[in-house]
Amino acid sequence: MKEITLIPFEGYKYIEGGVCAAKGFKASGTYCGIKKSAAPDGNDSPFKAKNDIGMVVSDTLANAAAVYTQNKVKGAPITVTKQNLKATGGKARAIIVNSKNANTCNADGEQKAKRMCELTANALGIKAEEVIVASTGVIGQVLPIEPIERAVPVLVKGLDYSGNVQAATAIMTTDTVKKEIAVEFEIGGKVCHLGGMGKGSGMIHPNMATTLNFYTTDGNISSALLQSALDEIVKVTYNCLSVDGDQSTNDMVCVLANGEAGNDEIKAESAEFEVFKKALYIAMMNITKMLAKDGEGATKLIECRVTGAPDFETAKIIAKSVIRSPLVKCAMYGADANCGRIMCAMGYAETDCDVTKADVYYISKAGKILVCENGLGLQFDEDLAKAILSEEDITILAQLKQGSSEATAWGCDMTYDYVKINGDYRS
Amino acid sequence: MKEITLIPFEGYKYIEGGVCAAKGFKASGTYCGIKKSAAPDGNDSPFKAKNDIGMVVSDTLANAAAVYTQNKVKGAPITVTKQNLKATGGKARAIIVNSKNANTCNADGEQKAKRMCELTANALGIKAEEVIVASTGVIGQVLPIEPIERAVPVLVKGLDYSGNVQAATAIMTTDTVKKEIAVEFEIGGKVCHLGGMGKGSGMIHPNMATTLNFYTTDGNISSALLQSALDEIVKVTYNCLSVDGDQSTNDMVCVLANGEAGNDEIKAESAEFEVFKKALYIAMMNITKMLAKDGEGATKLIECRVTGAPDFETAKIIAKSVIRSPLVKCAMYGADANCGRIMCAMGYAETDCDVTKADVYYISKAGKILVCENGLGLQFDEDLAKAILSEEDITILAQLKQGSSEATAWGCDMTYDYVKINGDYRS
Repeated sequence: MKEITLIPFEGYKYIEGGVCAAKGFKASGTYCGIKKSAAPDGNDSPFKAKNDIGMVVSDTLANAAAVYTQNKVKGAPITVTKQNLKATGGKARAIIVNSKNANTCNADGEQKAKRMCELTANALGIKAEEVIVASTGVIGQVLPIEPIERAVPVLVKGLDYSGNVQAATAIMTTDTVKKEIAVEFEIGGKVCHLGGMGKGSGMIHPNMATTLNFYTTDGNISSALLQSALDEIVKVTYNCLSVDGDQSTNDMVCVLANGEAGNDEIKAESAEFEVFKKALYIAMMNITKMLAKDGEGATKLIECRVTGAPDFETAKIIAKSVIRSPLVKCAMYGADANCGRIMCAMGYAETDCDVTKADVYYISKAGKILVCENGLGLQFDEDLAKAILSEEDITILAQLKQGSSEATAWGCDMTYDYVKINGDYRS
Repeated sequence: MKEITLIPFEGYKYIEGGVCAAKGFKASGTYCGIKKSAAPDGNDSPFKAKNDIGMVVSDTLANAAAVYTQNKVKGAPITVTKQNLKATGGKARAIIVNSKNANTCNADGEQKAKRMCELTANALGIKAEEVIVASTGVIGQVLPIEPIERAVPVLVKGLDYSGNVQAATAIMTTDTVKKEIAVEFEIGGKVCHLGGMGKGSGMIHPNMATTLNFYTTDGNISSALLQSALDEIVKVTYNCLSVDGDQSTNDMVCVLANGEAGNDEIKAESAEFEVFKKALYIAMMNITKMLAKDGEGATKLIECRVTGAPDFETAKIIAKSVIRSPLVKCAMYGADANCGRIMCAMGYAETDCDVTKADVYYISKAGKILVCENGLGLQFDEDLAKAILSEEDITILAQLKQGSSEATAWGCDMTYDYVKINGDYRS
């Protein structure tokens, strides 16, 4: 049920392998007991505790790019990762990431995040600055370092070219499914791979990056162009996602490119760069949809497509306003074809665009129905509307008739379970 | 349980009477069957259908002021009321207001809203432009005018100097309690009264006025000064309220001042103006708290007080960001003293203010606890925190230590019932 439908793209083939799909990337994950109230230490616990720490390592030094949350309250790992990527000029070998504790709003946060890098670097025989560190989980609780000290050798020993699932499950918090993607494509006659993993199901309303997301590729591309591709693709994927309007303190999207596919290094905007960017888009767009569909308590993936806008930014603001609206989200849960809530949410979106003449459709596998025309509510077939909104993948299409730009935003419905999950998250 | 605690203010006495507390104001309410699926016509229905239309009338032409939603999708009644107040130069005699249908996104909306004014005017022997019209309920469904045509004579016949409760119940939608307030005070040795009623429990995130709110006073004040007082007080009351972040299309706050208290007309900023403004503040602040506490599905009134801010606007943006956060709202429901969510919501508030060094307290009748100091999470007494957050009136106090301004915002917790109420609102 939480599976998304993968849309085909010519020239790109979906493959297995997640962060290990690209040549020269190993991964691992284990359980170390970061949360004291959780299971006893060790992966051999009788009730199979979920992995809470993971590692991804490139065989060779990779070019790296990252984007970070814009929340002013930032997790210590964000600060340390930024420093590291600056120190190496955009290069990295390894990623260490834990769940269960965000290492944020802690007095010793940076020290602990740096320690995680050192532990990883020492065990791998690399420099601490070549490590990307990330944490997700509860904010404002001291991160216990001892379980991590015990875990790092286990992680290094467990590194495997097919360890992607171990890592993808390690980063999960309230996620109900792991989120992985990988594609195969060609650049200059060389077969390239790009894959990734993501986590996150609450506190999701990126104004840039959100949630933890790690991508790897064997494509050969400079750090500068990799960052440029990432910046561009984040805008139309992660930045168009909203689960609850809460923008997290910790989250990042990073990409490692180790060049092992053997293509000539992409150093400038070119046809090859476009091919690479599209691969990144396919991977990131699909993980974005997975994140939306696995939103806390969600039963439906809601997509809002705004067309006929004067520009992309305006379309995006309006689409996100609809996706974010609790009243729209509740109506989607209840399969209630309330077009007034769509108009209302478009109306308070912070743009100057005239939305009062919009046409609004609901679309799903069950059909397509026009519920609002020129801004006026229509009498419509309630049975058909109910059938359309009872599907689990729903598109709200709003045609503004104000221009030729469009944007799509992704989110989910709001259910009793969202409240339940978040009413007592820390325990 | 939905009752708020009235804070005393020296020189002002809380009294009964709502919109009829001021001299020379009558009100009435009745059931007319605006929603076809509701009870059969007539107030004598065996199951006592809730009033769905109400009227407030001043014995003499009153000075009037109003503020309206800033949603670009506006209800037809908003447009018509604006036109009327412009035509009369800020004077009005009567208010007609219905629930169950917002008369918004309808092709014949303005025509119907004007018709409501005409019907009222004809029955009262006044001008149509002297009528304030308002509607609340479902958006995008045609407003049936026949029930209103039948209701107006009933309303006029029922007008009474103690009809305030009839009117206050007529404007309720998903409200579980009626919301009324009134105060008595003196201006220039004359006893004045100011009272009001409000409605609204979902789609509440005013960026100005929201929800339907009608105030009456026998204080003598010019239209211009009345508007100035309203504009100022809305900023620190209704604009500091958020139930779900959805800003409605229809809502307004209006005040009628008929001068029957006999004080010299307030025409300029003066000591008398300050006394009047404070009365308006007391009334509007209390209705704001009532609206927050009766938020859809709410079990708790949540107040966020941000102090030590560089200016009021910054404090307000941060306080509203906290109050609006679904994760904070769920944590309040679960009595989970998660300070990370407060820091997170302050961090993504759209201001430049440095919130990373804040102290955060939870306060209620059960005590006060510091959970975050200088932006860092503390180990605290979980039992005390739980006891504090288990109360139904909770204050989140954030001290920014960045200046000397402060603001308070009001909201409520998020519960299963919010989802339930909004999953199928139209039926």
